[in-house]
Amino acid sequence: MLLQTEIIRKKRNAQELDLEEIDFLIQSYTRGDIPDYQMAAWLMAVFFNGMTEKETFGLTKSMIHSGITVDFSNIPKFKVDKHSTGGVGDKTSLILGPIVAAAGIPVPMISGRGLGHTGGTLDKLESIPGFNTQLSLEQFIAAIETHNIAFIGQTKEICPADKKLYALRDVTATVDCIPLICASIMSKKLAEGIDGLVLDVKFGSGAFMKKTKDAAVLAKYLMKIAKRYGKKISAFLTSMNQPLGRYAGNSLEVFECLEIMKGKTHINKYGYDSYHDTRELSLILASEMMFLSGKYKSRDKSLAHAKEILESGKAWEKFKELCVLHTGNIDKLPLPTRSLEVKTTKKGFIHSFDVEKIGLAAIKVRAGRKIKEDVIEGTAGIEFHCKIGDLVQKGDTIFTIHGDNQELFQHALPDLQASFVVKSSKIKKDRLVLNHLT
Amino acid sequence: MLLQTEIIRKKRNAQELDLEEIDFLIQSYTRGDIPDYQMAAWLMAVFFNGMTEKETFGLTKSMIHSGITVDFSNIPKFKVDKHSTGGVGDKTSLILGPIVAAAGIPVPMISGRGLGHTGGTLDKLESIPGFNTQLSLEQFIAAIETHNIAFIGQTKEICPADKKLYALRDVTATVDCIPLICASIMSKKLAEGIDGLVLDVKFGSGAFMKKTKDAAVLAKYLMKIAKRYGKKISAFLTSMNQPLGRYAGNSLEVFECLEIMKGKTHINKYGYDSYHDTRELSLILASEMMFLSGKYKSRDKSLAHAKEILESGKAWEKFKELCVLHTGNIDKLPLPTRSLEVKTTKKGFIHSFDVEKIGLAAIKVRAGRKIKEDVIEGTAGIEFHCKIGDLVQKGDTIFTIHGDNQELFQHALPDLQASFVVKSSKIKKDRLVLNHLT
Repeated sequence: MLLQTEIIRKKRNAQELDLEEIDFLIQSYTRGDIPDYQMAAWLMAVFFNGMTEKETFGLTKSMIHSGITVDFSNIPKFKVDKHSTGGVGDKTSLILGPIVAAAGIPVPMISGRGLGHTGGTLDKLESIPGFNTQLSLEQFIAAIETHNIAFIGQTKEICPADKKLYALRDVTATVDCIPLICASIMSKKLAEGIDGLVLDVKFGSGAFMKKTKDAAVLAKYLMKIAKRYGKKISAFLTSMNQPLGRYAGNSLEVFECLEIMKGKTHINKYGYDSYHDTRELSLILASEMMFLSGKYKSRDKSLAHAKEILESGKAWEKFKELCVLHTGNIDKLPLPTRSLEVKTTKKGFIHSFDVEKIGLAAIKVRAGRKIKEDVIEGTAGIEFHCKIGDLVQKGDTIFTIHGDNQELFQHALPDLQASFVVKSSKIKKDRLVLNHLT
Repeated sequence: MLLQTEIIRKKRNAQELDLEEIDFLIQSYTRGDIPDYQMAAWLMAVFFNGMTEKETFGLTKSMIHSGITVDFSNIPKFKVDKHSTGGVGDKTSLILGPIVAAAGIPVPMISGRGLGHTGGTLDKLESIPGFNTQLSLEQFIAAIETHNIAFIGQTKEICPADKKLYALRDVTATVDCIPLICASIMSKKLAEGIDGLVLDVKFGSGAFMKKTKDAAVLAKYLMKIAKRYGKKISAFLTSMNQPLGRYAGNSLEVFECLEIMKGKTHINKYGYDSYHDTRELSLILASEMMFLSGKYKSRDKSLAHAKEILESGKAWEKFKELCVLHTGNIDKLPLPTRSLEVKTTKKGFIHSFDVEKIGLAAIKVRAGRKIKEDVIEGTAGIEFHCKIGDLVQKGDTIFTIHGDNQELFQHALPDLQASFVVKSSKIKKDRLVLNHLT
């Protein structure tokens, strides 16, 4: 008999667990035969002693097998998805999904909701009036077959172990642990039935991994697991030292994506397009997803095609098709009615942002959730007027707080005022993509 | 607001907790406001990162304050207790209690039940027909006033936090952690309202601490806490490299104590008294308890008095008085009816015992519990015929398994056969008391 206390002790004593022990733990926990308190002790022991690669593969496998795997056998095409480790203003899914789908490559998007300082794709989409993400798995599969793209949330059939474990990790200070993160991400993605995956692993003040080194370790580990499962994968290490694009907030981010897909620009007072980084990253990730499908001879070719799809308006057409599919009325996208400007009292160059603080300020205006039960406001959010390296004048607006609920703005104000550093010395612009791991 | 997740994270990150944070955790957990799973994660983080002395004192204090403290203000005498970290055949409480009480020094004994391979005083006493340990706290205090001694078990009023925490540690592999052990032991002892405490910290194959070094660390830590509370304390490091005395098992251990208190000996085939180590250790501990009371000019004097009490039969009289108080019929002590001898197939010197294995064999004949719900058999047990250093002949009986339930004996046999090492080289006798820390 496998006794869970002995398995906890073994991990606590830094001995490698057998795959049967890991599987016993995960399946028993999912069924409710092992209580939360034993799992919590095990998770903390894993936090301290880590897991070997073999153990992490085993954990991923067990988590996949805790539920069903999406069956795409009726769609004999290369299916590809993207996973981002999360950031502020990170809205690329809404653009890259339509681009890749318009290229004829299926993109089955199973997305999460925002929790903590980073946003979630489902919340953004649901700011579109009528947009329904509650498809059944059958409806989802059928939609992918017809439209090459559809969005659903985590279902209880897929990786129930992850759902239960994640909720437990969240309240036991065991979230930031690489093997647990890897197993959580990869079990969900592998259960989705995809053939390829592009990772956007963020680093910096607004990322889960503050250091590029840690982000690289995570990316390599994730790639190792995916490759072991025979999946095509590559990873970009991208900066979250400043928010991405012009807006953070649900309907505001959708608005930004619409503008980009409609081919619009927003030239700010510092002389560049506020949408440039969102557009650039969406294209990079979309073209890599397309390249992984094997349909392109080179990355240059897939990038050229991605650009053509975006610039010709085909992505925008695909997005509108998607809204019809999900019964969302994109023409009625609500936008905020109130705003408050956050200005700098100092002239100089923007040296840095505390992006996590910005994300937490966004939560305070209810653009995001602190705990799962929080209700968010679709129109609330923050507008970013400048980036690292910009020369700002005294009195320049750094942020605008947007929303309908003006009395919340004061809660976010001190955080935003404390979230940027202006210095007299010059500093170069932030590099968006640091590295591409293939 | 103190958020428990943040307290877990702080400990996980090896930062020292404030006393308010520890107290918040302990009181909230005792009330049921913090769930087991968060406490389990915290305990595992403590296992890895330890606690500073300040934290351990704080934890002890919080645990004491989770319940009531026994009020002995009506007994203005020095009250003393003994705590043993547990071993096989460790029955000294039944002898030293009566000795110290007969010397006119109150001994309020709040005892535990056996769990794991070590025995518990309450289980031993309850093998006496009619012996009732279920006194109310008021009855207990009144009995101490009249008789200087009484036994009760842990009550739910005293240190409820410890009860709840210990049960959780038991199933989450977080028992063997020095600060948690110290807080658990000392909170209970300090809540007992005692003025002095003698520690019997065991080391060796049958002890919780296998190494003398670890036992010494534990002893010193316990002493530090007691001294901070203004209590008199000293500690003996004693060997559990072989079982203590002639028997392990409930009524068998009571029998051994009766024999000793009646002044009897049992000279074995190797030429010494099978009871000598039980008697010696009981006298050492009793005399130290007496010395701490301040009634004696030197340890020689308190030892001489302890011996006089034992040899004159006054301890035996006190024990009988105790039985009357607890309604136990000592004349009807049940003894086992069946037995099985475990012999050596080799001639040579007994080099070592695996005492934990012996303790587990005792559990298999139901002399002890593996889990709290197990029912024990009062007469079951093991007799020890020789000690380290004895020269045994091929076919000599090393152990006798005793009990009424003969079919259980086979379960214990392989463990017992594998629990001793005979070699042709001579080896000196085991030293019972290694050190006395004052």
